[in-house]
Amino acid sequence: MIAKEYRKMLENKSAIRELSEFATARGKEIGYENVFDYSLGNPSVPVPQSFTDTCIRLLQTQDPMTLHGYSPSLGNPYFKEKVAESLKRRFHLPYTAAHIFPTSGAAAAVAHAVRCVTEPGDEVLTFAPFFSEYTPYINQSGAVLKVVPANTETFQINFSAFEAMLNEKVMAILINTPNNPSGVVYSTETIQQLAAILEAKSQEFGHDIYIISDEPYREIVFAGVDNPCISQYYANTLVCYSFSKSMSLPGERIGYLAVNPACKDAETIVQMCGQISRGIGHNCPSSLMQLACAEVIDETSDLSVYETNMNLLYEALVEFGFTVVKPGGTFYIFPKALEEDAVAFSNKAKKYDLILVPGDGFGCPGYFRMAYCIDTEKVKRSLIALRKFVETEYPSF
Amino acid sequence: MIAKEYRKMLENKSAIRELSEFATARGKEIGYENVFDYSLGNPSVPVPQSFTDTCIRLLQTQDPMTLHGYSPSLGNPYFKEKVAESLKRRFHLPYTAAHIFPTSGAAAAVAHAVRCVTEPGDEVLTFAPFFSEYTPYINQSGAVLKVVPANTETFQINFSAFEAMLNEKVMAILINTPNNPSGVVYSTETIQQLAAILEAKSQEFGHDIYIISDEPYREIVFAGVDNPCISQYYANTLVCYSFSKSMSLPGERIGYLAVNPACKDAETIVQMCGQISRGIGHNCPSSLMQLACAEVIDETSDLSVYETNMNLLYEALVEFGFTVVKPGGTFYIFPKALEEDAVAFSNKAKKYDLILVPGDGFGCPGYFRMAYCIDTEKVKRSLIALRKFVETEYPSF
Repeated sequence: MIAKEYRKMLENKSAIRELSEFATARGKEIGYENVFDYSLGNPSVPVPQSFTDTCIRLLQTQDPMTLHGYSPSLGNPYFKEKVAESLKRRFHLPYTAAHIFPTSGAAAAVAHAVRCVTEPGDEVLTFAPFFSEYTPYINQSGAVLKVVPANTETFQINFSAFEAMLNEKVMAILINTPNNPSGVVYSTETIQQLAAILEAKSQEFGHDIYIISDEPYREIVFAGVDNPCISQYYANTLVCYSFSKSMSLPGERIGYLAVNPACKDAETIVQMCGQISRGIGHNCPSSLMQLACAEVIDETSDLSVYETNMNLLYEALVEFGFTVVKPGGTFYIFPKALEEDAVAFSNKAKKYDLILVPGDGFGCPGYFRMAYCIDTEKVKRSLIALRKFVETEYPSF
Repeated sequence: MIAKEYRKMLENKSAIRELSEFATARGKEIGYENVFDYSLGNPSVPVPQSFTDTCIRLLQTQDPMTLHGYSPSLGNPYFKEKVAESLKRRFHLPYTAAHIFPTSGAAAAVAHAVRCVTEPGDEVLTFAPFFSEYTPYINQSGAVLKVVPANTETFQINFSAFEAMLNEKVMAILINTPNNPSGVVYSTETIQQLAAILEAKSQEFGHDIYIISDEPYREIVFAGVDNPCISQYYANTLVCYSFSKSMSLPGERIGYLAVNPACKDAETIVQMCGQISRGIGHNCPSSLMQLACAEVIDETSDLSVYETNMNLLYEALVEFGFTVVKPGGTFYIFPKALEEDAVAFSNKAKKYDLILVPGDGFGCPGYFRMAYCIDTEKVKRSLIALRKFVETEYPSF
């Protein structure tokens, strides 16, 4: 008999996927260039040419048995070293290769991290609005995800709700800054306050509480925004990183788990990842991708388009009367819908070929997400549709 | 607190890994060319040039956003279609893209398959000798692996032991043919008998029993050997395939799960894999690798060296008086050790720079594995060391 749990999951179709499918179908009718598809977080700028050149050079010059050979179970040593050197240089923490575990993107890094620091039944807290995939990531590990309600004023942390939910069963806090879907970056003040609470509670509960810091948008931070390095403020931090967004490589599934050198049992945790991998069939990202990323470790795609798009959208949304927190990074913005039911709001927007994702799936009903990883020219055209949508559907607003 | 289970696993160092590390260290003393390292199953022939050329062409000509973009959650449609077409053509079964789920090698395919067809606490049976990684693959899913003792006469299935162990809790049978470590290929007769028993027992127990068929060595079968296609004989078959051995791409982590079109709920099982992936952070193999493998789907590396090496070794082992079943495929051979304790035997062999893996880890004490994916010239030189080892250590043999 096939497993009930996974079969049942099939019934819950992802809202984002349904909207994206709608956008594709509508695109076939009117031309996709006329669909203002803000549904998917797919990078819209190419990988750096240096990455492509490096892949080609490796394929042309390296011994194929080495190039495509098994990575050691803890990952390719050269990749680990290059990542550690880069983190050390940039964040002034004594990373070595022994703190780095290569993973198939940030998703696999989170899957490993949660298994490292929880036993089945333990709780993991995250903060709304949150990336909806955290629910399967955490719950399938055997731990239980609990969501702290949003601070909708700023999309920083709602500390009073957080402290009320902290209890002895909480072993890890899963944070995502810069945040999907709000685009907000947690400030130094937020991180300091979070760290102080966790230190006090670790002492009180008599066990460590870990921060699992999901950071795929680390490199997409806008001018003048305070973007603190979590590991500088809290010892027991496991960073989950991906090259998907910074290098526009989402399909190549390459990222890493970086355990803070100051974390208790740091090197043991990396070694445990090797054991966890055996059970979930992970066994490292592609060897070619590890070697190519190692060679261009400090490069990113030209990410400037995201800030341009954000400014255009933010100014228009404010002008049209939306309540919206200005994003500090990512390629998302998360305004308040113009009626209480964001699903109804999003459905009405479809009539104007605007594809907006309701916030319900992100634990924040009444808001909606726009993923502005699209051409700036299209963002500009979408503003006309957005104005028409607001004026027609919400005339009294 | 870090998870006890994975921490504990760190204490059990892999025997293969320890031997491989010994071989590397010894190689630094006397030159690796003088160490007869039969420890690791790493392919020793290069990937086909056509694969390398295809990768380079894709990198030079394709839009990088498409080439490196997210795969749909059920995998790249082009890859799935090419795999299905190839399987259909070769095995005369009506595969379509809907039966194929791309995975990070056969390891991830097994990890998905077992989660599809078992609930926690269910049993999975496998047959000794067996690939030792099956223990973490199965047990970390929540199911329980039970090992049927070997038929050491032929290394086909020990059916009487198997039937004694079949019970209502058994939901899947995990087989591996061509087999690591024995090199034996299950005959048509074996598969027919297995299928008949499972059909009868499925009826008796009132639930389906699945075959999970781990087939990374499918393409490495020697002249004249009967190599039946399991799905032709048993409907509820999930095939786990990898390009690691056939194309010498183990580090690229590319393979697939192919659900037999005749399997009950075949397409639902593939869809469930997409849900399972969310929880284990898998999210498809590298997009470049999916596209490149699709283009050269029916090619293999030049695998003939493995048969040459097998014949050399088999003849020498027989001549030296070993009890050994002739392999039908793979790059492994699994002779009986010359004393009861294969670990002691393997330790003595080290003095002759022969690296042999004791069979204990494969569920078959008293035997040892040789992975002959090495240069033929080195196999020839190793025979001199092997003769010396036998004559010196086991003079009365």
